[in-house]
Amino acid sequence: MNEDSFFPLFSEFQITYRYKVYFTKDIFQKDNPVLKNFFISEIKQGLVKKVMVVFDERLIHYHPNLVSEIKNYFQGLESFIQLTGDIIPIPGGEECKNNQNLWESLVNAVNTHGVDRHSYILAIGGGAVLDLVGYVAAVSHRGIRLVRIPTTVLSQNDSGVGVKNSINFQGKKNFLGTFAPPVAVFNDLQFLESLDDRDWRSGMAEAIKVALIKDKDFFHWIESNASELLNRNLDTMAYLIHRCAKLHMDHIASGDPFEFGSSRPLDFGHWSAHKLEYLTQFSLRHGEAVAIGIALDTVYSYQKQFLSQDDCLRILSLLKTLGFVVYHPMLSDGEKQNLFLGLEEFREHLGGRLTIVLLAEIGKSLEVHEMDFKTIDTSVNFLKTYL
Amino acid sequence: MNEDSFFPLFSEFQITYRYKVYFTKDIFQKDNPVLKNFFISEIKQGLVKKVMVVFDERLIHYHPNLVSEIKNYFQGLESFIQLTGDIIPIPGGEECKNNQNLWESLVNAVNTHGVDRHSYILAIGGGAVLDLVGYVAAVSHRGIRLVRIPTTVLSQNDSGVGVKNSINFQGKKNFLGTFAPPVAVFNDLQFLESLDDRDWRSGMAEAIKVALIKDKDFFHWIESNASELLNRNLDTMAYLIHRCAKLHMDHIASGDPFEFGSSRPLDFGHWSAHKLEYLTQFSLRHGEAVAIGIALDTVYSYQKQFLSQDDCLRILSLLKTLGFVVYHPMLSDGEKQNLFLGLEEFREHLGGRLTIVLLAEIGKSLEVHEMDFKTIDTSVNFLKTYL
Repeated sequence: MNEDSFFPLFSEFQITYRYKVYFTKDIFQKDNPVLKNFFISEIKQGLVKKVMVVFDERLIHYHPNLVSEIKNYFQGLESFIQLTGDIIPIPGGEECKNNQNLWESLVNAVNTHGVDRHSYILAIGGGAVLDLVGYVAAVSHRGIRLVRIPTTVLSQNDSGVGVKNSINFQGKKNFLGTFAPPVAVFNDLQFLESLDDRDWRSGMAEAIKVALIKDKDFFHWIESNASELLNRNLDTMAYLIHRCAKLHMDHIASGDPFEFGSSRPLDFGHWSAHKLEYLTQFSLRHGEAVAIGIALDTVYSYQKQFLSQDDCLRILSLLKTLGFVVYHPMLSDGEKQNLFLGLEEFREHLGGRLTIVLLAEIGKSLEVHEMDFKTIDTSVNFLKTYL
Repeated sequence: MNEDSFFPLFSEFQITYRYKVYFTKDIFQKDNPVLKNFFISEIKQGLVKKVMVVFDERLIHYHPNLVSEIKNYFQGLESFIQLTGDIIPIPGGEECKNNQNLWESLVNAVNTHGVDRHSYILAIGGGAVLDLVGYVAAVSHRGIRLVRIPTTVLSQNDSGVGVKNSINFQGKKNFLGTFAPPVAVFNDLQFLESLDDRDWRSGMAEAIKVALIKDKDFFHWIESNASELLNRNLDTMAYLIHRCAKLHMDHIASGDPFEFGSSRPLDFGHWSAHKLEYLTQFSLRHGEAVAIGIALDTVYSYQKQFLSQDDCLRILSLLKTLGFVVYHPMLSDGEKQNLFLGLEEFREHLGGRLTIVLLAEIGKSLEVHEMDFKTIDTSVNFLKTYL
């Protein structure tokens, strides 16, 4: 027996990911060069690549000419980038992530159109559409280049600039998915005009969250600009999105992008938010649930004497000013057992030890590895009577 | 309008992957510490992790006690690693990658058993089983830790030590998949005893391939040890596997592990092999098709005067000595158009510019970006009459 044949082999390597998030307005106007320039910079001279475009069909209500604008935009660029055929409309919203047939039809389209690993898939829509199309791109041919055009506040400042994709499986949110960074993201401010007030508002929850755990000045800025944000000032929202996206991206790049560890510092307020979304059968928007989750863990942080009363009340007050409701009946009484189950489900999805992010002060977080049910109870009751 | 809000953001980060390939014999014998020690080194003191075991049910013919041996092995380790319940048998071979229900039942098992991102899935089988189970692990919860126990020559020296997984989609081989390195691989020599002669032989094709493009000395070693390999000497095979696995792993780690570029130097002989597998409806084993593909591109390299006649004949001679057939009727005549189509399909799967690896000499490759049909023709005819 040759001993050498039993010597263990060791493999170690790094994969480098790079992508840009562009901010623009009216991306498909013929004279807007930002998307065209991206493809020019990407594609080697002499080569011709394909791009398959998928979009949230609800956008048509507010942008009836979207399809013809896209086709028109790519006309004249055929020497380096070609549309694969029809622009593909899909139903948006969380429901699209439950639809196995939809997922399969998109993979089929990749196959039929011969979209290869050096081609592009361009996804236009909110977080759910980007999650679904991102997952299709990630697993077809082991990864097709994904370009995202997020169309909601939430996807422009958070999910759409990150590195994840997913679909649901048998009622379990995000059960299937991968970590797969896009090759580029284009935040088009113009799409935000068409959002209803709930979506406009709920997208701000993640900005408040990231300000609370990372950036006191940003929290102050949101406070000072609350009325402009409430009154749908687009320039003010543009700044909020830009700063929030930067905080998220910096966090991802400097931390544990593919979440090999157990901690997830960006998930402040999220353990109860995930459960509330599920308990309300997604009648609460993600941002609305996150606002409640932020409120709950803020009060909890105060009850545990990690956070001052001043800071606690200031946070609740900002949420209220922006129009968020900080309590939901599903938090209370008969439903409380369900809420507590949310803690274990949160741990299970991440794996490893339970790790919950709380607040030490505005702009500064801390981690705990257990939460006590009695204090959660007290905190829920506090929110129930908070006016 | 605040100009700052339109300044592009840039994200760049590295992900580091590390894994070991262990070589052992009788891995589930109670006194074999290698797997146990791996889990001890991985799992932080005080934590308990789950492991879900999936295996090729055909192994039972040769290892009737496999299930009880596995259960017995994990008995006494419950303080840090626990089996999730029954060991899961699945049908092996390429067919398992076409079976959508099988894939779904495995994802279901992950869900039912609460296998989280810090738990383990242990896959035991040949390349197809490892591909399927690896894909399940890669996309469940965005990635569960995968431990592979390859049981064939081919998977121990090539696919099982690499970073890919896949299933087939609508007849397209490996259409769905990801790049997802395992956390560890255990090559158990004992499993090779149960292989039939075809599987024993065909696994050596990838060793010849990697020797031809990277390691002249290894080619000479295979030549010198051909009769031991043919006569199923297990120690000789152990060395072949170890050296071949090392060459593959070093190549992956030093090159482009997730294949962002268009070149795939390890795919010498593979463009025609992929097509032949398909044209013969997988009645040719992968290694058998690769041997034909190697022969074809070797003769082509000679016809194009990249490779000397001596080297060309020496390569064909080694293939023959080891019992490989270097010609298949599907290469010829009426089928030739199909073979040529294989070139375009090969390009499409990788994307980008066609890149074919040829030989400059034994141990040294070169790349071309086109192949001429007339010389392929001449090469096929040469092989048809090669005795």
